[in-house]
Amino acid sequence: MISTELTINFPRLQKDLREISAIGMGKNRGVYRQAFTENDLQARNWLIEKISEAGLELKVDGAANIIARYVSNETKRPSILIGSHIDSVPAAGTLDGTLGVLTGLEVLRSLKENNVQLEYPVELASFSDEEGRFGGLFGSQSFIGRVTPESIHNAKDLSGTTLIEAMENCGYDAMQALNARRTPESILCYLELHIEQGPVLDSLRIPLGVVSKISGLFKWKISLIGRADHAGTTPMNMRADALAGLSEFIVEIPRLLEENGNENSVMTVGKVELHPGVANSVPGRVEFSIDARSTEKDILHEMNEAARKTLSAIARRRKLMFEFQILSEVEPVDCDQEIISTIRESISEMNTEFHELPSGAAHDAQILAHITPVGMIFVPSKDGRSHSPAEWTDWDHMRLGAEALLKTVCKISEKNKNKLQENHYG
Amino acid sequence: MISTELTINFPRLQKDLREISAIGMGKNRGVYRQAFTENDLQARNWLIEKISEAGLELKVDGAANIIARYVSNETKRPSILIGSHIDSVPAAGTLDGTLGVLTGLEVLRSLKENNVQLEYPVELASFSDEEGRFGGLFGSQSFIGRVTPESIHNAKDLSGTTLIEAMENCGYDAMQALNARRTPESILCYLELHIEQGPVLDSLRIPLGVVSKISGLFKWKISLIGRADHAGTTPMNMRADALAGLSEFIVEIPRLLEENGNENSVMTVGKVELHPGVANSVPGRVEFSIDARSTEKDILHEMNEAARKTLSAIARRRKLMFEFQILSEVEPVDCDQEIISTIRESISEMNTEFHELPSGAAHDAQILAHITPVGMIFVPSKDGRSHSPAEWTDWDHMRLGAEALLKTVCKISEKNKNKLQENHYG
Repeated sequence: MISTELTINFPRLQKDLREISAIGMGKNRGVYRQAFTENDLQARNWLIEKISEAGLELKVDGAANIIARYVSNETKRPSILIGSHIDSVPAAGTLDGTLGVLTGLEVLRSLKENNVQLEYPVELASFSDEEGRFGGLFGSQSFIGRVTPESIHNAKDLSGTTLIEAMENCGYDAMQALNARRTPESILCYLELHIEQGPVLDSLRIPLGVVSKISGLFKWKISLIGRADHAGTTPMNMRADALAGLSEFIVEIPRLLEENGNENSVMTVGKVELHPGVANSVPGRVEFSIDARSTEKDILHEMNEAARKTLSAIARRRKLMFEFQILSEVEPVDCDQEIISTIRESISEMNTEFHELPSGAAHDAQILAHITPVGMIFVPSKDGRSHSPAEWTDWDHMRLGAEALLKTVCKISEKNKNKLQENHYG
Repeated sequence: MISTELTINFPRLQKDLREISAIGMGKNRGVYRQAFTENDLQARNWLIEKISEAGLELKVDGAANIIARYVSNETKRPSILIGSHIDSVPAAGTLDGTLGVLTGLEVLRSLKENNVQLEYPVELASFSDEEGRFGGLFGSQSFIGRVTPESIHNAKDLSGTTLIEAMENCGYDAMQALNARRTPESILCYLELHIEQGPVLDSLRIPLGVVSKISGLFKWKISLIGRADHAGTTPMNMRADALAGLSEFIVEIPRLLEENGNENSVMTVGKVELHPGVANSVPGRVEFSIDARSTEKDILHEMNEAARKTLSAIARRRKLMFEFQILSEVEPVDCDQEIISTIRESISEMNTEFHELPSGAAHDAQILAHITPVGMIFVPSKDGRSHSPAEWTDWDHMRLGAEALLKTVCKISEKNKNKLQENHYG
């Protein structure tokens, strides 16, 4: 049995967070640590130093994922893997991803300092480019063997810099990402602590969340093409107004979701570009994004079908042309039931309230789920804010999250004592 | 009586049009003759030369309006004024404004060459900056005395160049526009030939239009302000989506017009800017334009009220803030009934079909209407296209338009023989 006294060193976690937050902090209090930039490199070096200081095993794999390892006895067993990321979107908050890596680091340090004897090694992975300077989830995708020479060669950021150039500037060889693949046999399970990035826990005033499922999504780029006409001289009934078509679609979204979605389904038009886009011209063309998410594969499929039908019908009736490009499709993932139970037990033992909820945002956990059972712990995001300098979580909630993560790691090891011959958890 | 044989020299008009079209013609076949640019100056010099060659009186007034004059006998009488403009929007067609100036020039030349004796002088005005590099209708506004030292000082183009600088570069002193004012007593009436810039005549296959009214308009800039949230993590019922609010408004426009407008009423959202404007974020803020037009003052007022109410209701219900800026308000103008009758008679004598229709676009005529009775002749725009290299009108329709203009000038002079003591026409 592991001591119930075992806990994390919260002042140290706070100090870590303050230190790393300063790396890439802009004047607007936003964090700029996009993957493989100077700031990201500085944060990587900071993390590597912390891992080394703690006396943990350190490895940087071919995808530049930074991996720490704590082994108390048998080294051939699969690892309990904790992960997240320290790269950021531009003008980010300080917690997205980073809190997961820092709490993971703190868990490994606590285990080591207390010389805790676990049946399984515990690893921490800080994955490269989760946020998507080069497409997103690059590190975790490499980790499960989902990158190809083509995908590495083709990856570019918005300014046209290639992944290969950017990694080279940081001293990495991008093609080595092909060697970052880990076997399913080497991982017992995957755990990730993350800020919710949504308003649910904060509005319920509940300090911890247990993630049940991670939403899948489809993301489209659509063009509706009508005709740009003079806004003064063209009678309403002689127009082919592309924006009017889009507006009708947006107004239909609640119906689409009521008919085809569930309470975890969302659909968003977040980007709109009009051509010619001047006040005295009927919009001849509109390009826009659709981002749709659901935790259920079937529902996502229904939403996809319904959105196509609605768009086609509007375009046909309004005499608009309709172009369509799939930007991404990701399947939803269920968190592992045994891990969920273990997290719930851990939090209950802490006499802390929790709420089970789905994750609407994508996470490295979603990728890891392809090779291992996954579980996630959420801490509340103040006012639901994320990807913004306004992102914040109560210190108390961070502490509770880190303790729950530590407890969960120990419990998983304990529970799996008798399954040492099996490759997979659960 | 004036000879019924009197006509215009159409090959010369064609030659003129070809010559001026080459000035400022871009590689995309679009015309770039924005007011007080190098190209505009070249076109001005071309026009001045043509007027001089024709032996017509020439004057350039304080607003840089180029004015030609044909006087057959009594010089103290008010003038029949023909007008339009030769400046263009960027990437314009060749006809908008220019055709009115060139047909006007041809009318004056025909009168002079044939030594036609009219009771009234005939003037042609090519007005400066109708298209709005510096706000629009600058020349005609100056002509009726509607500019002020402030308005001249404040006028800037989109790149920040002031009207004063731009005119100085062309050799003009902008402040002299204050001296361009003409008295109502000096003008008998105003005539303008223009392309329709809309699809009505072309779709009816009718070669000439007689303008009944010129639409007034209101142009607003609106901001709807909600909250930018993560598109994956924010449940639909916790969003304040600014774009969803705008979409609802756009879908309401047909109802707004049905309830408050008439068949000449239009309302357009032509410009939309989203913030943050990325696929995975709920739009927190949308800025957009509303351009609403009607030929009836009361209807325009009703549309204005209804649009405000609809926007307020949507904003209130959706918990969006709502900011509002009036960019311009122009009152509709009725063309003069006697001039309309005279134009109709002229066209009928030519055994040509015509259609009476309102103008949805603004014209210098709208400004001149403040001091004198106005009338307009429209020629069809192929496929309704304008402000585009696709702008075109059949040569035959141009010829018919020019002849109708000439005939109308002669008829107005004839009809007003007995009204020489009156200051105003009609």
